[in-house]
Amino acid sequence: MSTTSHDDGRFSRRAFLGAGIGGLAVGALGGAGGVAWAHADADGASALPSDGVPSTTAYPFYGQAHQGGIETPQQRHAIFAAYDLTVSDPRSLQVLLARWSAAIAQFQRGRSLGAVEPTRDSAVPTDTGEAADLEPAGLTVTIGLGPGVFDDRFGLADRKPAKFAKLPALPSDQLDPRLTGGDLSLQACAEDPQVAYHAIRNLSRMAQGTATVRWTVMGFGRASAGKGQTTPRNLMGFKDGTRNIKEDADFDAFVWHDGADQAWMKGGTYQVARKIQMHIENWDSDFIADQQSVFGRSKQEGAPLSGTHEFDVPDFAKKGSDGELAIPATSHVALAAHENNGGLRILRRSYNFTDGMNENGQINAGLLFVAYMNDPAAFVTLQTKLGRVDQLNEYIAHVGSGVFAVPPAPASGSYVGEALFR
Amino acid sequence: MSTTSHDDGRFSRRAFLGAGIGGLAVGALGGAGGVAWAHADADGASALPSDGVPSTTAYPFYGQAHQGGIETPQQRHAIFAAYDLTVSDPRSLQVLLARWSAAIAQFQRGRSLGAVEPTRDSAVPTDTGEAADLEPAGLTVTIGLGPGVFDDRFGLADRKPAKFAKLPALPSDQLDPRLTGGDLSLQACAEDPQVAYHAIRNLSRMAQGTATVRWTVMGFGRASAGKGQTTPRNLMGFKDGTRNIKEDADFDAFVWHDGADQAWMKGGTYQVARKIQMHIENWDSDFIADQQSVFGRSKQEGAPLSGTHEFDVPDFAKKGSDGELAIPATSHVALAAHENNGGLRILRRSYNFTDGMNENGQINAGLLFVAYMNDPAAFVTLQTKLGRVDQLNEYIAHVGSGVFAVPPAPASGSYVGEALFR
Repeated sequence: MSTTSHDDGRFSRRAFLGAGIGGLAVGALGGAGGVAWAHADADGASALPSDGVPSTTAYPFYGQAHQGGIETPQQRHAIFAAYDLTVSDPRSLQVLLARWSAAIAQFQRGRSLGAVEPTRDSAVPTDTGEAADLEPAGLTVTIGLGPGVFDDRFGLADRKPAKFAKLPALPSDQLDPRLTGGDLSLQACAEDPQVAYHAIRNLSRMAQGTATVRWTVMGFGRASAGKGQTTPRNLMGFKDGTRNIKEDADFDAFVWHDGADQAWMKGGTYQVARKIQMHIENWDSDFIADQQSVFGRSKQEGAPLSGTHEFDVPDFAKKGSDGELAIPATSHVALAAHENNGGLRILRRSYNFTDGMNENGQINAGLLFVAYMNDPAAFVTLQTKLGRVDQLNEYIAHVGSGVFAVPPAPASGSYVGEALFR
Repeated sequence: MSTTSHDDGRFSRRAFLGAGIGGLAVGALGGAGGVAWAHADADGASALPSDGVPSTTAYPFYGQAHQGGIETPQQRHAIFAAYDLTVSDPRSLQVLLARWSAAIAQFQRGRSLGAVEPTRDSAVPTDTGEAADLEPAGLTVTIGLGPGVFDDRFGLADRKPAKFAKLPALPSDQLDPRLTGGDLSLQACAEDPQVAYHAIRNLSRMAQGTATVRWTVMGFGRASAGKGQTTPRNLMGFKDGTRNIKEDADFDAFVWHDGADQAWMKGGTYQVARKIQMHIENWDSDFIADQQSVFGRSKQEGAPLSGTHEFDVPDFAKKGSDGELAIPATSHVALAAHENNGGLRILRRSYNFTDGMNENGQINAGLLFVAYMNDPAAFVTLQTKLGRVDQLNEYIAHVGSGVFAVPPAPASGSYVGEALFR
């Protein structure tokens, strides 16, 4: 296979800058439920700003309980890509997943796919080369399988998890078919956007003849908070992710698949991706009190309107001196809160994006919403409710959508989804 | 003016995280010909990867010899935006430049435009707020004036610098009118893309009624080397900027305007921006020897084909054992070299970009080429030559273009371009 790399310093990114493979410190495993990574600071110039991991961080790909890019700390950049399979034999799908897995393992270690500069004059470089001097930058690439993998084409219908299906039409939908669906997904996240781009570009090249890119979104700023991270802001200027899932027990309860109906999904999860366009002209001309009422939180601090600090637990029954609820019942936080949804929670891992200008000649704004959960119905339940009455709907439109089953990480020598074909 | 900010810790980004204005350490001036900046590391988590400046870096806006974003070290992210003026009185143009200048001075210090959360319920926030918790991140915003500023509209025709004019048609042009021209330009560069986005978004909002966005490009990776920076790679996988201008004496000779014909341009320069689309399918299927012949350099090391190390001076007369020139005469490095152009040099400050998918279903690649020079004819001369015979033309298309006069930095209390109206 052309994706295998050589254990030769020449093929290691930055090897010629003196770091070498020995310096890349591919991580040891963490605790059972924890997140494993490691980094080296040998060159002394690798630390990232608050909430970023050092650029030398290399997440292990094989032998983990889960794929990276879910519980691992959210990186600052992302590219999401959905693909259509153009083949209909399971063998081609297997080969693609195996080649992708082998390549991702190299990329996450900061390596290229073979020599950036092959020695034979008539060789076509396997790797496009633009990440050749870059550190691993905490790259994670997460592979997802769309509903189409379980249709008539691949003979895998009986392997389809009971809870997995295309998302139904939702009240908030203004979906563009060109930004919707996909048989496969790749989510590449890194502290350096060129590292994420390089991964998606080269994995897309490897898919030629098997799958074509259907839609992509490039996220330029982290817009959710993970464990140990301060809460970033979305492009409406509000903090996003204050109440996100952060504890291992909650990951077990709400994110990880237990494999009960389909053993190949044990340790996996479901991924919901939505491209959400913001009507920023309307938002930007809104009163501050209305903006805060829409979210149910204060803008500067991010506190629930029933409290004073960001992490105060919202009190949805509290009333103000005017006799009205402090947190409006139709605010985003009230509608989405687990207290008001029978305990339902999902992991959000979203990014901001811009597509340049919009039709009003203003700089476009939007959210690449990505969420993980062990039952896609959790998203459907929440979004059905939000789509009906959320005050936020005046300012946003869901224009892209996809749902994917995310297998666990492969064992060493295996590949993502291998158990599906057994 | 609504752009003035209050010297109140409340309005300073991250003030509530404990940094405060005192910690933001707006820089003292460096030497006469040097680049002035300063940073504080008080929170201990602010360093960036190699070649980035710490996220606490705040470049001074007023009282410098030149605007930032030219000689200042190239940041890792950029948004370039060109605007059409919709007014025809000089007063409106003056007011916009004054408001932009006051706002940029705040943004470069890491501040928002007034309170993110105004105290009055019916106040519309002046600032969109998404950078409220972020450090200054080495932001620079560079204002340019297009040829239209000197047409019949504003009575400034006699202030037009002798060498400033629209670019002529060039052999490489495949220009899209929607990506070409502009009466004004803003180049926002920062170590954090959300900081650059916030600046362009808010400056675009402030222009409403005076100017509309014409075209934008978001650069996601530095693609040129400045002084003290290692050489990054473009999306063809080659190092870019090895022979870039880095010495003060060369800035004086090739970049800074001497003000001889127009005193208001003394310490200014000209900016040429080109959106260059790459035909990456063709490039990616090319032999390594051909790729290296196109650039005239080796791919891994970036050495001229006449030498062995990146910074070896190219020997354009050297021949190989086959009797052919080691560096082909039609290679990019040979055509662009100052040795072969009567000493001509320009400062390049380019970024990589992607617009998502291209028509072949592959992940688009391109270069936001930005160059600075004290005579736009330097670019015209070089690009005329490159456009005719450069081997690279098979793999690229210039689809967007603009040229702008960049005034010097304003004195404290003044604004960019003020001297133009005196």
